[in-house]
Amino acid sequence: MKCKKCGNKAVIRLRAHHISLCCEDFLSFVLNRVQQTIKRYKLFVPKERIVVAVSGGKDSLALFDILQRLGYPVEGFHLDLGIDGFSQRAREAVEAFFVEREAPLHLYSLNENIGAGVPKIASQLRRSPCSLCGLMRRYIMNRFAWEKGFSALATGHNLDDEGAALLGNVTRWQIGYLARQAPLLPAFHPRLVKKAKPLALVSEREVLAYCILRAIAYHEEQCPHAKGATSRSHKEALNLLEYYSPGSKIRFYQEFLKHQGIFPDSASQGLQECAVCGFLTTRERCQFCEVLEHYKGSPLPMRRSEAGKG
Amino acid sequence: MKCKKCGNKAVIRLRAHHISLCCEDFLSFVLNRVQQTIKRYKLFVPKERIVVAVSGGKDSLALFDILQRLGYPVEGFHLDLGIDGFSQRAREAVEAFFVEREAPLHLYSLNENIGAGVPKIASQLRRSPCSLCGLMRRYIMNRFAWEKGFSALATGHNLDDEGAALLGNVTRWQIGYLARQAPLLPAFHPRLVKKAKPLALVSEREVLAYCILRAIAYHEEQCPHAKGATSRSHKEALNLLEYYSPGSKIRFYQEFLKHQGIFPDSASQGLQECAVCGFLTTRERCQFCEVLEHYKGSPLPMRRSEAGKG
Repeated sequence: MKCKKCGNKAVIRLRAHHISLCCEDFLSFVLNRVQQTIKRYKLFVPKERIVVAVSGGKDSLALFDILQRLGYPVEGFHLDLGIDGFSQRAREAVEAFFVEREAPLHLYSLNENIGAGVPKIASQLRRSPCSLCGLMRRYIMNRFAWEKGFSALATGHNLDDEGAALLGNVTRWQIGYLARQAPLLPAFHPRLVKKAKPLALVSEREVLAYCILRAIAYHEEQCPHAKGATSRSHKEALNLLEYYSPGSKIRFYQEFLKHQGIFPDSASQGLQECAVCGFLTTRERCQFCEVLEHYKGSPLPMRRSEAGKG
Repeated sequence: MKCKKCGNKAVIRLRAHHISLCCEDFLSFVLNRVQQTIKRYKLFVPKERIVVAVSGGKDSLALFDILQRLGYPVEGFHLDLGIDGFSQRAREAVEAFFVEREAPLHLYSLNENIGAGVPKIASQLRRSPCSLCGLMRRYIMNRFAWEKGFSALATGHNLDDEGAALLGNVTRWQIGYLARQAPLLPAFHPRLVKKAKPLALVSEREVLAYCILRAIAYHEEQCPHAKGATSRSHKEALNLLEYYSPGSKIRFYQEFLKHQGIFPDSASQGLQECAVCGFLTTRERCQFCEVLEHYKGSPLPMRRSEAGKG
């Protein structure tokens, strides 16, 4: 197996792209794909302040590494979810990564700021830790990025994540989600920061190979509360199609983006300010504040920013 | 395992519908679903002449049996494709089925009418037997149904067939196909007969169980030229989703039908009469006549009907 670019010994075969590549050319290949994604979907403009949400897993650390190597001025944001053991080890991986490259890292700990982690809050409220975690992460990251004056929040969603989400949206025909799912979610309100997924065209396997070849010490562990079968079954189904017909996954996603205009959108309708924290919601009080109120018995969310309501 | 309807011993569990049923109630269940499909998608009107395309496989024989039991005046049409051994055995199964129930059957043999079967024509024209077979079947069935004055052509496509086709159309985002794929393809030209798929909401497994419980002796063999992995991989992918989340398959298909209006259609545009046979085509000469001309060296298709051009 020889590298298609230089003829040296290849380390990876990419059936979807009909090529085998050596270490160096594979790393360039990934960088190029991310750069193309940024350009094609207009993810970033020059010199803007980008914050990368880093969980400590392979995707987010690879993303940070790639954006840094591409010359973007990036900072990291890590949310410590307060899941016993798991969260400590994730945080250690993140801190070691940022210390090693002397890059700026922001930390937010649920235990320190709210007095409890996801499992404790979930168990008290008797709701699924996964949906609660998603809700809290979205709120905290959105609010952090906006309050700190970042103009873009980048996340490590890879092609398999995006493909699985798309397959889920398609098999349930969730038109609203289909209208919005994209590598870029624009800031459709002044108090929201745009969200970008620069790895959207890089497969999970490619991200993994990138981390291995770049010796990135990521946090390998799966969350003990990890979602059940839903997204896993969609990934498996796509992998099956990919196995029979290499390139299926990326075609599915890219062709979708070409035709996405078909699906009518109503995303930014009805956004208002939460009566408690002043951040955006479609209700009178945002879900985050509701969670905190039910958990603590009193409405006491994150400190309300000066830039907040009026 | 008890029947949810009568409490007797159940013979089948239908996870997608959260029920187990005994033999009698399962057969009624299938009949009801087909009747509902006919009603909901307006497949047939009372007293119209319906021809069922019968290959001899489980789906088409089950469909004929069901439509007969529901009281529709159906006739069968079998196309003998001239595939050595396979076609003889298929034809025998069909003939035995129709003799047993003294139902009207129309036969058309490629060998007798054209002088060769699909494999011979395909090999001479150096094209894939599967695409050639599809093309010839569509032409002959459409033309037969129209010339014999039938108002509907019913085919045995089941939920797995329709789901797999839909998944294929969705993963490749073939908007034109998405606009038209449905249990009913209306007769959008006076020289075309409407096409109906009354088994579209009955899964492959349910059809199989129906045949077993009704002791229908269908032709079990798979065509030796059977299409490779494409539709099989889509069926496998859907089965995987169904396994993790029972009901996925039927939700995927039914929700699609609800939202289908999103996809713009251009089906009936540019239909004209074939210069050779007078039947409908989007070209000057239809593909069927082109095949025959290349095969025989002279344009000599099926006898041109009196009802043909002008």
